[in-house]
Amino acid sequence: MTIGLITDFGENDYFVGILKGVIKNINPQVDIIDICHGVPSYFIQGGSYVLEKTYHFFPVGTIFLVVVDPGVGTKRKLLLVSTAGYHFIAPDNGLLTPIFQLGGKKVVREIDKDHFFLLSGSSTFEARDRMAPVAAHLSKGVAAVDIGSETSEFVTNQEYYPQELQPGRIEGRIIHVDKFGNMISNVPGQWLFEKLLTGGFKHFKLQINDQEINEYRQNYASTSGLPFLLIGSHGNLEIAMNRSKAFKELKAQLNQKFLLVFY
Amino acid sequence: MTIGLITDFGENDYFVGILKGVIKNINPQVDIIDICHGVPSYFIQGGSYVLEKTYHFFPVGTIFLVVVDPGVGTKRKLLLVSTAGYHFIAPDNGLLTPIFQLGGKKVVREIDKDHFFLLSGSSTFEARDRMAPVAAHLSKGVAAVDIGSETSEFVTNQEYYPQELQPGRIEGRIIHVDKFGNMISNVPGQWLFEKLLTGGFKHFKLQINDQEINEYRQNYASTSGLPFLLIGSHGNLEIAMNRSKAFKELKAQLNQKFLLVFY
Amino acid sequence: MTIGLITDFGENDYFVGILKGVIKNINPQVDIIDICHGVPSYFIQGGSYVLEKTYHFFPVGTIFLVVVDPGVGTKRKLLLVSTAGYHFIAPDNGLLTPIFQLGGKKVVREIDKDHFFLLSGSSTFEARDRMAPVAAHLSKGVAAVDIGSETSEFVTNQEYYPQELQPGRIEGRIIHVDKFGNMISNVPGQWLFEKLLTGGFKHFKLQINDQEINEYRQNYASTSGLPFLLIGSHGNLEIAMNRSKAFKELKAQLNQKFLLVFY
Repeated sequence: MTIGLITDFGENDYFVGILKGVIKNINPQVDIIDICHGVPSYFIQGGSYVLEKTYHFFPVGTIFLVVVDPGVGTKRKLLLVSTAGYHFIAPDNGLLTPIFQLGGKKVVREIDKDHFFLLSGSSTFEARDRMAPVAAHLSKGVAAVDIGSETSEFVTNQEYYPQELQPGRIEGRIIHVDKFGNMISNVPGQWLFEKLLTGGFKHFKLQINDQEINEYRQNYASTSGLPFLLIGSHGNLEIAMNRSKAFKELKAQLNQKFLLVFY
Repeated sequence: MTIGLITDFGENDYFVGILKGVIKNINPQVDIIDICHGVPSYFIQGGSYVLEKTYHFFPVGTIFLVVVDPGVGTKRKLLLVSTAGYHFIAPDNGLLTPIFQLGGKKVVREIDKDHFFLLSGSSTFEARDRMAPVAAHLSKGVAAVDIGSETSEFVTNQEYYPQELQPGRIEGRIIHVDKFGNMISNVPGQWLFEKLLTGGFKHFKLQINDQEINEYRQNYASTSGLPFLLIGSHGNLEIAMNRSKAFKELKAQLNQKFLLVFY
Repeated sequence: MTIGLITDFGENDYFVGILKGVIKNINPQVDIIDICHGVPSYFIQGGSYVLEKTYHFFPVGTIFLVVVDPGVGTKRKLLLVSTAGYHFIAPDNGLLTPIFQLGGKKVVREIDKDHFFLLSGSSTFEARDRMAPVAAHLSKGVAAVDIGSETSEFVTNQEYYPQELQPGRIEGRIIHVDKFGNMISNVPGQWLFEKLLTGGFKHFKLQINDQEINEYRQNYASTSGLPFLLIGSHGNLEIAMNRSKAFKELKAQLNQKFLLVFY
């Protein structure tokens, strides 16, 4: 059994180490995989993005512990969402938005049974005291029904998806910046082709910070030195430059809006 | 069996990778857990702090390899400390101070049997050549007595603990800064309550860099925008701000002293 | 069975997490070890260096997945190199140069069988779509012959090794900078001794950025405060300072040339 971790805890602290200790103490056999601890602090959409783009590569049965939790210690719920293939544990702040959008059977539970919680007296590390123990017990075969009750009330993050303002005018956001400075948007790559192939448009331009990008490339190696669009390995539209950091060159911000115009 | 790693090696180099290779080569079955490699370079108290706050979450039997070692290659000893639950391997430079303070049975050994050491010809990577092989053999069932001889001479770091200068005047230090910029002190959180509930004091103020902090909060979400005190999930007194980096705002230094005054 | 990962993907993104998902999905039993993800972006020699200095610590049979791949998506080959002890999977851009230099039997294959590849439609993440699945299947016992065909054409990186311009004048390069700011060169440490002990020379000086270094030390703890040479734990000549970052003090660049002169 595998537990995959996605957090905004970073790699320099010992928070992730504690989660692993808590989990291994309950289930020494479980395989713990660090998926990403580099979600920008408090950036909920960034956590959703990493989850959306990674979970389906993991073995069926994997339990995902996803923690970006600015509201830790306040009264927001903790959720356990179970699909046909996977379990997802996260605070109820919109983090699981892409999972809610999946087709197929889904059961959403509020984690309201407290018999697996650690009693630390602290209210600021629920990943350690509540989510990790629940994940570990789940990996040992505890039934979801013994962890929480079904609920139909949970937060969906509307900002996670791009908006088509008018036909051919799409407002997107920068949702992730990778180590190479590539700026990954929340616009699905196939929208580009659909608009151009079947949407009646012939051209496109992406407007961000008073700059216009209208070049399209298939890989990072071939280019003119200008920023270009590419459909990244994750399937989303991405702004990149060859061996330069597009993010720096374009003076962009994480979560910044841009306009993608077809004409 | 689990080996937990705490070092100041960082994540960018290959030092940690080599430790894992050495360990797996000796005991392929052992579970290696990265607890933290982000201890600030050479900051011994920082390593002690991470160890103190994490070890007890791990399964009984876990072996901790703790390396912050500015004196590597010089004549300081290497230690193996065994408690009822755990083993700790570290250079003898005060790193294990919080373990020495634990109640219960403890055996302190100098690692003076060299038959498990790697013969590399180098004197600058004893974590690889001495500590990791010893940890790996210990995890395979080698007896502690075959690794080192008992000793009663070892270094304790007096700076690790806060000083009560006068009743109600406590000199503490910033011992860790987390990713969110929260400044964690070496003052146990319960001191705050003891002074106020049973110590005859009514108020407190923390003085650092000509600033005074006298607000107390229970979690990060609720606040005025000013820095406040909080008892962190680790149980120590912590200076935090809501979604800002207290460390930057207060222009603080790691290991900096502050004064906590009750009145 | 163990798969060791060396990449320039960094720790902040989710690329490494995806590789682990892909591998575990194919072979849940395999042990995945992060050796280093901090190779500077696109710096092929840096990846070669980490591989050279780490692989031999790992258990016989380990499969190394080594990815520094500025040409991803272009027509360069992917290689599987098998020695008596290990397998190495990497793009054919010189990354495996130190492995090609090893004595003993080596079989170099081009990964040209595509039946294990993931069909993602993307051409920018071949580590995920091609190299990781091949590594995972190899770890499950698939024969190398079912992965690729033998080839005698592959790229060797001549820049990886230092040049002896004239007897006693060696042009080297800075090939790695560690967390402590130590600058590791591509000059084997024993060259220093060979030149001085049997080469007829009495003195040495290293010239870099108009500075001259002629002190030699055996460990980091003892020094004058000036930069000095040391033979690092990796066996190469290294420029270091005691508790200062030589890299910053000397205003050096990664991959920068220097001159080592014996006289």
